[in-house]
This record gives sequence, structure tokens and C-alpha cells, in this order.
Amino acid sequence: MSSTIGHILKVSIFGQSHSEAIGCVIDGFPAGFAVDQEQLADFMARRAPGGLPWSTPRKEADAVRFLGGLSQGVTCGAPLAAVIENTNTRSQDYDSLKTVPRPGHADYVAQVKWKGNQDCRGGGHFSGRLTAPLCVAGGIAKQYLETLGIVCGAHLIQVGGIHGARWDSQQVSLDQLRYAQEAVFPAEPPYDQAMIDEIVQARSEKDSVGGVIECAMVGLPVGVGQPMFDGLENRIAQIAFGIPAVKGIEFGDGFEVAGRRGSANNDPYRMVDGQVSITSNTAGGILGGISNGQPLVFRVALKPTPSIFLPQESVDLSTGSNTQLAIHGRHDPCLSVRAVPVVEAACCLAVLDLLLEQRLDLV
Amino acid sequence: MSSTIGHILKVSIFGQSHSEAIGCVIDGFPAGFAVDQEQLADFMARRAPGGLPWSTPRKEADAVRFLGGLSQGVTCGAPLAAVIENTNTRSQDYDSLKTVPRPGHADYVAQVKWKGNQDCRGGGHFSGRLTAPLCVAGGIAKQYLETLGIVCGAHLIQVGGIHGARWDSQQVSLDQLRYAQEAVFPAEPPYDQAMIDEIVQARSEKDSVGGVIECAMVGLPVGVGQPMFDGLENRIAQIAFGIPAVKGIEFGDGFEVAGRRGSANNDPYRMVDGQVSITSNTAGGILGGISNGQPLVFRVALKPTPSIFLPQESVDLSTGSNTQLAIHGRHDPCLSVRAVPVVEAACCLAVLDLLLEQRLDLV
Amino acid sequence: MSSTIGHILKVSIFGQSHSEAIGCVIDGFPAGFAVDQEQLADFMARRAPGGLPWSTPRKEADAVRFLGGLSQGVTCGAPLAAVIENTNTRSQDYDSLKTVPRPGHADYVAQVKWKGNQDCRGGGHFSGRLTAPLCVAGGIAKQYLETLGIVCGAHLIQVGGIHGARWDSQQVSLDQLRYAQEAVFPAEPPYDQAMIDEIVQARSEKDSVGGVIECAMVGLPVGVGQPMFDGLENRIAQIAFGIPAVKGIEFGDGFEVAGRRGSANNDPYRMVDGQVSITSNTAGGILGGISNGQPLVFRVALKPTPSIFLPQESVDLSTGSNTQLAIHGRHDPCLSVRAVPVVEAACCLAVLDLLLEQRLDLV
Amino acid sequence: MSSTIGHILKVSIFGQSHSEAIGCVIDGFPAGFAVDQEQLADFMARRAPGGLPWSTPRKEADAVRFLGGLSQGVTCGAPLAAVIENTNTRSQDYDSLKTVPRPGHADYVAQVKWKGNQDCRGGGHFSGRLTAPLCVAGGIAKQYLETLGIVCGAHLIQVGGIHGARWDSQQVSLDQLRYAQEAVFPAEPPYDQAMIDEIVQARSEKDSVGGVIECAMVGLPVGVGQPMFDGLENRIAQIAFGIPAVKGIEFGDGFEVAGRRGSANNDPYRMVDGQVSITSNTAGGILGGISNGQPLVFRVALKPTPSIFLPQESVDLSTGSNTQLAIHGRHDPCLSVRAVPVVEAACCLAVLDLLLEQRLDLV
Repeated sequence: MSSTIGHILKVSIFGQSHSEAIGCVIDGFPAGFAVDQEQLADFMARRAPGGLPWSTPRKEADAVRFLGGLSQGVTCGAPLAAVIENTNTRSQDYDSLKTVPRPGHADYVAQVKWKGNQDCRGGGHFSGRLTAPLCVAGGIAKQYLETLGIVCGAHLIQVGGIHGARWDSQQVSLDQLRYAQEAVFPAEPPYDQAMIDEIVQARSEKDSVGGVIECAMVGLPVGVGQPMFDGLENRIAQIAFGIPAVKGIEFGDGFEVAGRRGSANNDPYRMVDGQVSITSNTAGGILGGISNGQPLVFRVALKPTPSIFLPQESVDLSTGSNTQLAIHGRHDPCLSVRAVPVVEAACCLAVLDLLLEQRLDLV
Repeated sequence: MSSTIGHILKVSIFGQSHSEAIGCVIDGFPAGFAVDQEQLADFMARRAPGGLPWSTPRKEADAVRFLGGLSQGVTCGAPLAAVIENTNTRSQDYDSLKTVPRPGHADYVAQVKWKGNQDCRGGGHFSGRLTAPLCVAGGIAKQYLETLGIVCGAHLIQVGGIHGARWDSQQVSLDQLRYAQEAVFPAEPPYDQAMIDEIVQARSEKDSVGGVIECAMVGLPVGVGQPMFDGLENRIAQIAFGIPAVKGIEFGDGFEVAGRRGSANNDPYRMVDGQVSITSNTAGGILGGISNGQPLVFRVALKPTPSIFLPQESVDLSTGSNTQLAIHGRHDPCLSVRAVPVVEAACCLAVLDLLLEQRLDLV
Repeated sequence: MSSTIGHILKVSIFGQSHSEAIGCVIDGFPAGFAVDQEQLADFMARRAPGGLPWSTPRKEADAVRFLGGLSQGVTCGAPLAAVIENTNTRSQDYDSLKTVPRPGHADYVAQVKWKGNQDCRGGGHFSGRLTAPLCVAGGIAKQYLETLGIVCGAHLIQVGGIHGARWDSQQVSLDQLRYAQEAVFPAEPPYDQAMIDEIVQARSEKDSVGGVIECAMVGLPVGVGQPMFDGLENRIAQIAFGIPAVKGIEFGDGFEVAGRRGSANNDPYRMVDGQVSITSNTAGGILGGISNGQPLVFRVALKPTPSIFLPQESVDLSTGSNTQLAIHGRHDPCLSVRAVPVVEAACCLAVLDLLLEQRLDLV
Repeated sequence: MSSTIGHILKVSIFGQSHSEAIGCVIDGFPAGFAVDQEQLADFMARRAPGGLPWSTPRKEADAVRFLGGLSQGVTCGAPLAAVIENTNTRSQDYDSLKTVPRPGHADYVAQVKWKGNQDCRGGGHFSGRLTAPLCVAGGIAKQYLETLGIVCGAHLIQVGGIHGARWDSQQVSLDQLRYAQEAVFPAEPPYDQAMIDEIVQARSEKDSVGGVIECAMVGLPVGVGQPMFDGLENRIAQIAFGIPAVKGIEFGDGFEVAGRRGSANNDPYRMVDGQVSITSNTAGGILGGISNGQPLVFRVALKPTPSIFLPQESVDLSTGSNTQLAIHGRHDPCLSVRAVPVVEAACCLAVLDLLLEQRLDLV
């Protein structure tokens, strides 16, 4: 319940923004896999990018320490346990959150749900910081999937009013999937600069912006996903909504398909070089919840960072009166930038869990 | 895995479009609840509406027979088991599906996944007909939630190119939620007629159209939903993607929030009559995955019915050659119409499961 | 929760002793398996043996009707759904159970737990009759395991004061495992007649007797079972305690090992014909929850049938006064006889679920 | 799978005997509970008792560090995460285990299952040391249950050939339940000294002994436990077999009931002071898997510590030849002594999980 996900590959996320540490336990990962720690560190670094005008002053080295599950760097069959210490926290920034909930945050619902026992420092367990352990788990899953020839990538296709270009879902290239791995900003030129400007502008106005992330995966064999409630869409969605600020998800052509005729939306089959081929990909690689061999494509919409420096209307729960809230501290003006690898992590975890689960059907 | 969902309230759906019967087992439903069979029949009837120009000639009485779980009409603590016999099936319509997969259907992925052992008659377990047992389970959940003052409803807000009006997410009324319960067509005037025309037009052209369903729930207390992976969004999405043809889901203002500033998207708190009130509802009643006391609002996008009468390009898997497919049989030109109660069912199941699960936190 | 078990192979049992029907849904069974209906009927028949002096007059044909999951007799990837109609029930026999609970039965706890809403006819969902659908699921699992060379069998080794001989856990033969399949009474000569006499004697005194069932499985590869909470012992025990009347379970030499020295209890390794061999089997084929290649052996203890015809002390819950209870109806004087195939079913379900789950680790 | 247990209260155990640390994540614990750290330390100390002749020279302070889940010492709704550093490990003691498996240990099955990738130092994830995090989780559960008036205790009733006295299952007193909390040795006089002597004797002979632990819980309301697969017996057994060396479990009179008549085994109901009372407790407080208000009583059998200093027959997997194994290092001559609080922990976790799960039915 709550912070545990997965069927064969079970991931349990723990920690609060300002608790001693955050981390995860990954139970069910195959034994005998050499985790590439450097590659994992690179993946984690994408969550906390530097070199951008608004890069947070909070230094999150996010150094991952494995407490268990590895024997000489190789998974040994026991659960993987990873910890990231919380350092450089400034809890005094958050003293008032218990009485004056921040609009758009979980402060108020947590206060009611847990009767004031919640840890509200930095958003507690609801903090975006908890996506770091999700990236640990997802980053290792991603490495493993690559050994099977399954490659995942994501990029920003919208930041506030600025739209970038979607990938051609029929032919997503490895170069495209890996672009954001290397880039300072996870969107392709020429859109990247306009998106950066949009964020800088919002920040200069003490405000924030939302965004849309597109994620794709290639190399999936036909047949991954289970009918009805355990298809690729169900499983990816269940994890993706665990990323703070995600408010929508769509697969393939998503909401656009509602406006279409069946004749325009059905992806036809053709024989190409003796192989069954699908000549369009409105389905985003998924039929009946099951992979059809086309690139898996989905998009998630993230709301603007709720923590803004503009004064906001709120209430003082201790006095029952209206008040104005002025948030201090360090806040990212656009969560979507850092969320790009997190969406990849979510996708990789969902897919690897399904692959492990249905081994028998596939082989 | 696959056709079983839920944590405390476990629902297991079974059957294929042309198997002897379809049905469900509902384990974990509270004892002592008198199921209103007539109300359930009315709810089921919304899945198979008559009186519309394209109403399917297949007569699905969908009479529900309870094999277990009731004692004198009252839930007795044992699992509820419900069966709907499959009658009037015409399997010969589907003889060719194993060799020539229908574009947009799961025929091809099922063929590969199960190596030709799948039941392809009528789409087998992937058939929209399997939403009937989902409605049995969801319909009973809906009845139960109503006794707690929690009311759910849904309506069509888009059919192909025709858009209807969304509900005002700040104040969804009971009348609005119940409109589709009584109406012949589940969209409000003046949009209903245009939508009907759109469907009739598509059908006359041997084609189909997609749609968007909006669902809302009022009366939820603050605090329903668990952090991270078991929030309302995660759980509703996991079930909603179990409805055939659903390709996207968004909560509150959904994908629109990506284009917004935080200052415009954060829902402010105000004291109203001594109560904490939220003065807008971009969040769709959910913060951090947890209900905030506002109406819960979400939308799902459904693709056009993949079964169309226009000839389509496909392949003959037995010969490895290209072919044209002409589908016969009975097919709904717009799945979205019948899916309206199914979306309600999905929402009610997800919410009731969470309510049962977190009893301790709430009370 | 409650009547649903399994991780990859999920089984959901439904029905009450006197509801319209009983049955099960089996989700996650591999596709492409031809269920041998005749063999299944034979297995089911062992639960309701005829030809014994006390064979119950209630005729339970236990004819299994599959509502879904098969296509031309072969599993098709959709959940298997099986139903057994309840016929020949005589509910009037149980009219008084709501007010006067039978000692040793669940009547009283069900009354309190479900506040009088429970179905007490025939014990409701707690009835031994519910082991029939468990045998459907387990019987199919057993057939499947046999195709992998994994064979399971069980026999009675104690009935009341009569003890039979345990199998030699080092070398259980297929003949031994299959003995109870064919025999009228599931214990080997010369013990069978003494056991039968013991039961007849108890019955003639309006009483009942308990028993011990020993179950073994051969052919398991080394490595089946997961560490800690999902080992063979954990999983088999969880299902076995779902069989009414089971009060204890022990693996290998079980409770005897408590009295031993390590030097006597450790099973030594030796090379035999170039293979690692284990020269004794106190462990019952399980080390650390994981199969070691030796025969899997366990025993379950069942209490005497609580329904006896001797008058018993009970209370009248409606009046709050003491009373005497005289049970009528049809009751088996020794549940353990019929439970033999049920224990096999439990074992096969647990093992197949684990095999499906850990495919990747094994291959 | 494997090291994760629980439905509402999910516990995930991690670490190996010689990994950097061991620990657990506890998801779903109620918010607002002040964990008594001192009491928890006392409970943990019972797992590593000093003052006994064979007390292991390995000093396990087992200091628990909470990384998350607490806010000012009170559970805050986020998962509890606890870590115990592994210090003072001497891995060189175990260098040969990969090639020469210890009889009675999981070395060999782990080697085959994980193809040599397992962490065999100190038994890796199979080590009895992993019961420490189980005690963290169970110890907190125990504290919580005590606030509800539910008290659990355990004691040794057999060590090798020495038998102690069982509790009277009809009237287990709080003093009895708490005896082992304070005592140096967890068995009551006069049996304690004979048991200690038995262990000393075995140790002096470079051998080890097994034992039986009896556990009881009082204060449970009627109605705890779910039918069929989620009763108290199923759930307790599933966790109890996660304790290394446990080979059997029995509830109430356990295996003895097999030899009884129903008339002797059925616990009669009587009105006492206007309350329903049960005048014997062969059932160990459980009917149909559900608590009946009597003391919950069960026993587990533990095998003798497999690590003994006597030379043993084994094989060298690297050469495929027979060999003799002489184990060095530090080993407990009777695991059962330290396992007493672990059995309590298992019981408390199972019961609290059920209580949280079925809140609605009870209240």
C-alpha cells in the first residue's frame, strides 16, 4: 500500500524530504546483474541538472549507498536496498506549513488525513525529492532492459506555452531516445532555448510553469502486458501518477483519438520482408494492453510547481482565518525538467516487472 | 494478474465474448449490505442502451445471476459471485480472425502472446462485453458508496468532432451526476443530438468514432487515497485502462495544466462559514493522490471502435501475405456511449477499495 | 483478501455450502494447456469417495462446468472459471445454527464478525464443500506439473488412534504417490482396514475422529521457492490452513527435529555418479524455503469433524442461555479421508505459482 | 516477492549477514503512534541475549536508526525505514562456502538458484541475523497492539530432549506472557536450568540442539481473521516459516487433535456472567481462521543450528568430489533461544495486518 509497487519486482520507497535519508528496497530483481554504478550516477544526475539558470542552490549529490543486495557489485538474489542521505536540509523554511497549507500541495490533505502527525518539512513524503529513490530503482531496471535490447528515453515536448515536436511514433531512433541523456536541457533544438526562456521568465515573475513529457521505448517484443488490469497502460499509469505533479497520461495518439474515425485510427498490418509490420502507430505500441512490436509511446502532463514566490491566498488552520502565504526556500520553477528521467524510470519499472512476471508466456 | 484488481475489495473478471458465460467474483465486500437488484439491472442496462439508431441487434439481457455471496439478498461476508450467460452468440462471424487480425484489435498480439491458443471469437477476453461484469462489481460498489453519501456520475463530452460542455468542477450537482442514469443518450442537450448525428453519420459510412467521457464523484471526505502509488489517480487509472479502447486519462484540468503558470493553477484556500474551502478545482479534487474534499473529476479518451465495415488492410498470418479484411457481424459505431456507466464503475471500485483499506486513518 | 490466493496463478474461490453454486476463477494459468476433463473428474471424485461404510448420502456429483478460459478444451490465456452447481441441499437442517452455534465450527465467530449476516446453512463459506473448487484449481495445476515431470501424492498416516507408516522421505516412488488415486481408501494395507474400523467405530458412537495426511512431491528441480516469506513452506502452509480442520503442518521431520542434535539432523552432501546427492531427508526437500532436489514432504493434522451426533453443550445466542445441541443432517465421521486430494491440490497450487513466478531465476 | 510481507501493513526486509547494513521498510503503519525506542531496544536485546554460557562473542548492538517515517518520534504516515549497521563482521570465516556447502544450510540451493551470484558470507540473506529487522517491525507492531489491550508473549517449551510445561491455553496470564521479557533465559523454572545444561552439553560436544517455542496472544476481540486463505493460521504461518530453522507450526492442540474424537476436541460454549464463554481451548483461539476470543496459542518447531563444529560430510562443488567440512566462526548452539522474540514479532505483524485490514467488519 502507498509507497510499494510491483508484482514480481517489488519496489518500496521510503523517506521524507527532511528525514535522515531517503531510499528504496527492490525485491525480486534478477540475480547475477552487475549494476553499473557510474551509469546510475549519471542517470541520477539528470534529476538534478546543473548548468541551468534556475538550477537549485540545494546541492543534492544524491550519492547512492547500497546497504544490501549486491555481492561484489553484482545482484545476489537478496533485495537491493539503496539509501541517499539527506544533507543540507533547512527545515526552518517549512515551519509554518502545518498551519498554513500551500495551495496545490498535499499539506492540507496530509494534515487532515494524519491529524497533524505528518512530516510537513519540505513536503515530507510527498516531496519531489522522493523521485530520487524511484530513479535508483528505475535506473537499474533501465540498465537491465538495455541488456535485452530494450531502450527507453524521454524528452520535454511542452513547457508552459512553448510546444516542441513529438517524436515520430513510427520510428523513434536510439539517438532520439538518448538525446536527453547527454543534453543540458532535455528538449531538442530549436525548442530548448524557448523553453528555457519560458522558465526563466516565469521564475523572474516569482511564478512557475507546467510541462508535458513524452516517453518512448523500443525493442519490446510482441506480447508484453497482461489483459484487462495489468496491461502496459495500466501498469505504467499506476507508477506514473506516483510522480508528483502528474495530472494526465495518454498512450499513442491519446486524447486525439477521440476525435477520429476508426478508419483513420486503426493501424493497418502489412507484410514487410516476410515480417508482420504495422504501418502506423496511433496505438503507441499497445493493443489490448499488450505490446504490438511498435515503439511504446506515451505522454504525461505535469502541473506547474505549486511552490511559487508570489503571495497566495490560504488559511491559517490554527486560527481558522484567511491569510496570505509567501513561500520562501528553494523551488524549481518547472518540475517537468527534472521529471524527464523519472518518467523513464517509471516506464522501465513497469515494463521490467511485466517481463519478469510473464516469462512463461513469452518463452 | 491480469483480470484481478483490488487490494481489500478484490474483483476477478472472467469469461470471453463467446464462452459459456462471463462474470466476476468480488471478494472483500462488506457484509450486511442489501444489494438492490433492480437498481443494478438499471445500471447494467445503461451499458446496452436501446432506443438509439444504432442499437446493436444483439440482445444482451445481461441478466445477472448470483451464485454466492448473498444470503436472502444481503451480502454475507463470503465472496460475491455473479454470472451472466452468453446467449445469442454467433461464433461463425469470427472464424477468420486467427489468421487475419483486425487492425486496432488485440487479435494479433493475442495470437503471438498465446501462440494461437487464444479464444478469438468476438475478441475473446478482450471483448467490450467483459465490461458487463465490471459493471456488476462497480454497480454494487456504487450503491454502497451512495449509502455513505458519495455519488458518482459520468457523461459524454466529446464524440468524434462534436464537443459537449464539461461540468463546472467546482460545483457538480447531483442532478448532473444522475442525468445519464435516466437519459436515452448520456450527454446533455443541446450536444446530444449533434453527437447522435455524428455517430449515425460515421455508421452510414461504415466507420466509427471515438469519444471522451467525463466522470465526477461528490461526497468524498478529505483524506481518501494513499501516498505515491496508491493515490486516487493511480488506482482509478489502473482500472480505467482496463476498459477496452481507453487511451488516455486526465484528472482535474489534466493536460491543460501543462500550459499554465503556478499562480493560475494553484487552488487557493479560503475559510467559508468556518470551514476550509477551496475556491477553484483545477486539481480535480486530488492533491498528492488524496482527496481534498472538492468534487473528484477526471476524463478518459476512447478510441473509435476498431471494428468497422470499411475494408481494411491486414495480413494473412497463415500464408504470410497481405490481404484485405472486411468485417461482418454486429458492431457499435461508438464504444464511448456504452462506456459511460463502465467509467463510473471503475471509479466506484477504485474509491471503495481505498475507503475499505484506509478505514483506520480516516476514522 | 480471504478467498483469493496466489501471486502469478491467482485463485479465487466462491460460494457457500447452500448457495446456488460454488466455483473458482483461476487467473494466470499458462495458455495452451489441454485440460484433461476426465482426469479432473477422477481427481474430484476422490474428494467424495463412495464405497465406504460412511459414504455420505448427499450425492455430490461435483460436475465441473467451465464458463470461461478454455477454447476447444485448451487454456486460452483468459482466466479459467469453473462452477459446480449446488443441488440436493437441505437447508432446513441448519435453521437453528444462527442462534445455537456448533462447537468446533465457525458459526459463532461468523455470527459476531458479520453481525448475523453470514450464511450459516451448511457452514456457509466455511463448509468443507468449498474444497471442491480448490480441487478444481489444484487438479488442473497437478496435471500441468505432471507434464513437467513433477508428481504429487498424499495418503493418510493417522486416523484417530491408528497410525500408518510414513513414506521413506529419501525415496518416495511414483507408485506410492499414485496409490491413493486408485484405492478405495487412501491408506496402504495393512493400516487401511484398522483406520476404516476406527472411523466406523467413532461413527457408531455418534462421534468423529481426526487424522494426519502426509503429502509428497517428486521431480521438483533445485531452486524452487523464494527467500524468507515466499519459500515453499510459507506458501504451502498459507494454502493448507485454508483447508477446514487443519490445525498443524510440518515439513520433513517437522516437530521431531526439535529434539535432535545438529549432527543428526543435518542432511549430508555426497557425490553420487557425478551428481550432488543428499543422503538423508530430514529437511523434507526444503532448505531456506527452497527446494533442494529431494522429495518434498510435509504432513498436516486435521481435527475430528466438529459435527457429531452426540449432544453437545452450547448457548442460545438469542436468549443468552445455555442449551444442548443435537446436530442432524449428513456428516462425515472423518474429514481427513476426503481431505487427501485437497492437500495435494494445495501443494500443487503453491508449487505451480512459485514455478510461474520465478521462471527467470531458474532458466 | 520473497522478503516482502503483508497486505495493509507491508514489511520489506533487506540486507545480508555481511552486507553494509540490514533493515526494513514498514509501509502502512498507522500515523500518530509514538514509538518507544527504549522498549524497542529492550525487545531487540532479547534476540541477542547476554549472560548465557554460550552467548555469542559477536557483539551485535543492533542499534536501530530510523531513516524515515517518524516526525519527532511519532509515526507520520510515511513508511517507517529502519537500518542496523553490520559491524564486526568477519567475512573470511566464510570463504569456502561457495564451493563446500554446509549441510542443513541454504548454501547449496542458493548456489544453484542464483548460479553462484549469491552472497554466501554468513549465510547472506538467509542468515538468522535477518530476524533483527523482523523484530524491529514486529516490536513496533507489538507496542501498538498493547495500546489496544492485545498482549503477546512466547517461551521455550522444549530444547533438545528437555521438555518444559506448556501454558494452560484456557488462561494465559499477562505475567506468563511477560516472563521471557525479563528473564535471562526464556523458559520458566525449573525447566530453564535443564535446558541450559542441554545446550551447554551439546556445545561442549561441538554440536547443537533444536527446540519448540510456544507463543500466545490475549486480548484479541472475536472476529479477527478472514475466511479461507487469510485466517490467523494462514497469515501467522506464512510469516513464521520466514524464521530460519522453523520446520513446523501447530495451533491450539495441533497434531494432538488428529488422535482425538470430536466429542473430546470440540470446545463447548457456555454462558458465564451473561457472556458467551468457551470452556476449553483445543482450538487455540481460532475457529475457521477467525479469533474466537480465547487466547491465541501456537507452537513452532525449530531445527538444531545447522552450523556445528563437528566435521561433516559435504562435497566440493568446484571439483565434484566428496570432502569433509569443518565449520569455524561463531555459532549459536541453539537458535531457538534467540528466536523467542522473533516468533512474537511474527505473530504481532500478522495480527496487526489483519486488524488494519478488516477495520470495517469489526467496528
